[in-house]
Amino acid sequence: MLGNCMDNVRNTVPLVHNITNYVTVNDVANILLACGGSPIMSDEPEDVADITSICGGLNINIGTLNKRTIEGMFAAGRKTNELGHVLLLDPVGVGAGALRTGTAMKLMEELKFDAIKGNISEIKTLAIGSGTTKGVDADVADAVTEENLDEAVAFVKNFAVKSGCIIAVTGAIDLVSDGKKCYVIRNGRPEMEKITGAGCQLAGMMTAFLIANPDAKPEAAAAAVCAMGLAGEIGWSRMQDGDGNSTYRNRIIDAIYHMNGEILDKGAKYEVR
Amino acid sequence: MLGNCMDNVRNTVPLVHNITNYVTVNDVANILLACGGSPIMSDEPEDVADITSICGGLNINIGTLNKRTIEGMFAAGRKTNELGHVLLLDPVGVGAGALRTGTAMKLMEELKFDAIKGNISEIKTLAIGSGTTKGVDADVADAVTEENLDEAVAFVKNFAVKSGCIIAVTGAIDLVSDGKKCYVIRNGRPEMEKITGAGCQLAGMMTAFLIANPDAKPEAAAAAVCAMGLAGEIGWSRMQDGDGNSTYRNRIIDAIYHMNGEILDKGAKYEVR
Amino acid sequence: MLGNCMDNVRNTVPLVHNITNYVTVNDVANILLACGGSPIMSDEPEDVADITSICGGLNINIGTLNKRTIEGMFAAGRKTNELGHVLLLDPVGVGAGALRTGTAMKLMEELKFDAIKGNISEIKTLAIGSGTTKGVDADVADAVTEENLDEAVAFVKNFAVKSGCIIAVTGAIDLVSDGKKCYVIRNGRPEMEKITGAGCQLAGMMTAFLIANPDAKPEAAAAAVCAMGLAGEIGWSRMQDGDGNSTYRNRIIDAIYHMNGEILDKGAKYEVR
Repeated sequence: MLGNCMDNVRNTVPLVHNITNYVTVNDVANILLACGGSPIMSDEPEDVADITSICGGLNINIGTLNKRTIEGMFAAGRKTNELGHVLLLDPVGVGAGALRTGTAMKLMEELKFDAIKGNISEIKTLAIGSGTTKGVDADVADAVTEENLDEAVAFVKNFAVKSGCIIAVTGAIDLVSDGKKCYVIRNGRPEMEKITGAGCQLAGMMTAFLIANPDAKPEAAAAAVCAMGLAGEIGWSRMQDGDGNSTYRNRIIDAIYHMNGEILDKGAKYEVR
Repeated sequence: MLGNCMDNVRNTVPLVHNITNYVTVNDVANILLACGGSPIMSDEPEDVADITSICGGLNINIGTLNKRTIEGMFAAGRKTNELGHVLLLDPVGVGAGALRTGTAMKLMEELKFDAIKGNISEIKTLAIGSGTTKGVDADVADAVTEENLDEAVAFVKNFAVKSGCIIAVTGAIDLVSDGKKCYVIRNGRPEMEKITGAGCQLAGMMTAFLIANPDAKPEAAAAAVCAMGLAGEIGWSRMQDGDGNSTYRNRIIDAIYHMNGEILDKGAKYEVR
Repeated sequence: MLGNCMDNVRNTVPLVHNITNYVTVNDVANILLACGGSPIMSDEPEDVADITSICGGLNINIGTLNKRTIEGMFAAGRKTNELGHVLLLDPVGVGAGALRTGTAMKLMEELKFDAIKGNISEIKTLAIGSGTTKGVDADVADAVTEENLDEAVAFVKNFAVKSGCIIAVTGAIDLVSDGKKCYVIRNGRPEMEKITGAGCQLAGMMTAFLIANPDAKPEAAAAAVCAMGLAGEIGWSRMQDGDGNSTYRNRIIDAIYHMNGEILDKGAKYEVR
């Protein structure tokens, strides 16, 4: 099933508008090409509405936000909503500063997102900030483990319902929920934390998967998460003596380049709760 | 002959000022170093005139333009013209939005370019927008093929005359013309479309080739196009099992690093019409 | 001794705030992860104080400065000084234009830096501009060689005293001085000049080393320089037929990824004068 979501990307070549940070933007572009999508970057307020209009969706990443690009995020997001295109938020570093937190909260208030992807700390910040968590929710631990999995799944489902978005939490165990079911995903390698931008790459790719699978968005989001983790496993298996994180980054993108639905279905490790 | 243009780059180490997009800027810098040039990036209006003054030419790429960098493009371009340095335009995404199209047209009106490099769709947009195409010209197809080659050559020659620039159209078949003759180039690999920034890299390298060959600019532009395509072929021949687009990007730049005039002359596939 | 400085980085995972150029920012992030640190990038004036507050130090690189990011540099630098965090300056291209030179001088006047790292030409520009060099100092050659080593060491020691910073001059021979002693370092490969951003990467890594070694800052700065040069040697030894500067960039970061204190102590080539 998840494999089908990837094949749909290759068959439809979704055009993805990215307003993303300048640290990992090149890798986002290359992984989008690798998975069968096509990337466009534009963050100038006067340019974004035109660009997003010719795309199938918009990936907003606040990693190196500034006042001009924030304005671009809102302008592009409004146009995306107006057109009914896919809209995804990657709230990089939310909680680390007032501008980031305020911007992410305001984006959530004024725009309708299809999906939000972050680590547990970022997602918790959004949940607490938007007043949608109370009591036990806020107690969810800072890492999703086998021990606290039940609470974490409940938290993610709950926030998905309250926010009206697909919520994807990445970590050693990844969780993807639309509020009804929750994909618990165990693909990936711990070494992926040693490359910059694995999360940003996933956000770009997830946007492409959502565009290509309008009738199966939760599956599409889960498929993107499994694909990224599986690429981390395949890329790692190709590491040679002396290779480190810079080469690993290339091998992960290379693994996506060669992945198709069959490989993904065979390698995806997940359960649905 | 073309090989000589590349050797001149290595012998003179041209300094290239780039106002380019933040997606592929690192690859532009590395390919400039690989071919024997030297890159500088600066887009702040108050900095660009000083920087361009110490360079031999300026590469303007509008891929992630914003209002501040547009101002920088005009300021740097005027200084470059004033000093008689090489000026190149890479109109990335022109036609995809009003700001891009308007900026590219205004750059062409206010500045004197030595060369413009784009895909057929971008070049057609410029030709139509600048009112230099009429009737049959506007009918040129959206890809240059063996079937429509005669019309495409005529279109490119015509636009080169009317714009007063060397026009380089990249695609499966590349065309480079100064209005009199047209290089028809058949180097390259289709897989190059799966890496981001091959065109941006070519634009940076072409600027270096133009600076290093002031008396043979059409040949220099054609040499840069052949070198990029040949690097795509050499890079591809070094791909190993499991390598994908991320590694391919590295291998293309690596191939430029090892290329010299002799290798280029041996591998260049072109005819002059 | 120097090896210990590297082990301290891996043991404490210093968080480094970088306001750096968009050309090499991805490599800076990846080398920081490779050496055991953790990178954050933020240059928006309204965001930087929050971000720098959660970090251990700030790396300011003026390579693609603009008016907004200059404001961010001062705001972040003041907060960093206020908190007593590590502050480093990489004055890329100072002397190439009035805005760069003026900004670097003003940063030195208004902020208290722990270290400044540049090539000899950049450091000379700062020394002359700040009026701290007279007579013989200004005569120091444009490259540090075995022939002019004595004068160069004297110049660097002198400027370290007058500026109150650790001064690191990179080149064929690297010099690091706190004004009392001077590390003369002979690690590295000439081919490192053919990759963009080796210096930027070093600046990021040096900031991490300084944070992790508060009581041995000169040693920490020297250790970072040795580590970078040694990585250049190890990376080069792993180059295969056809590999060029793009692959070399990856291999250098990979070499840092596998380096530890023992490897560094064994490979570091330096004397103290």
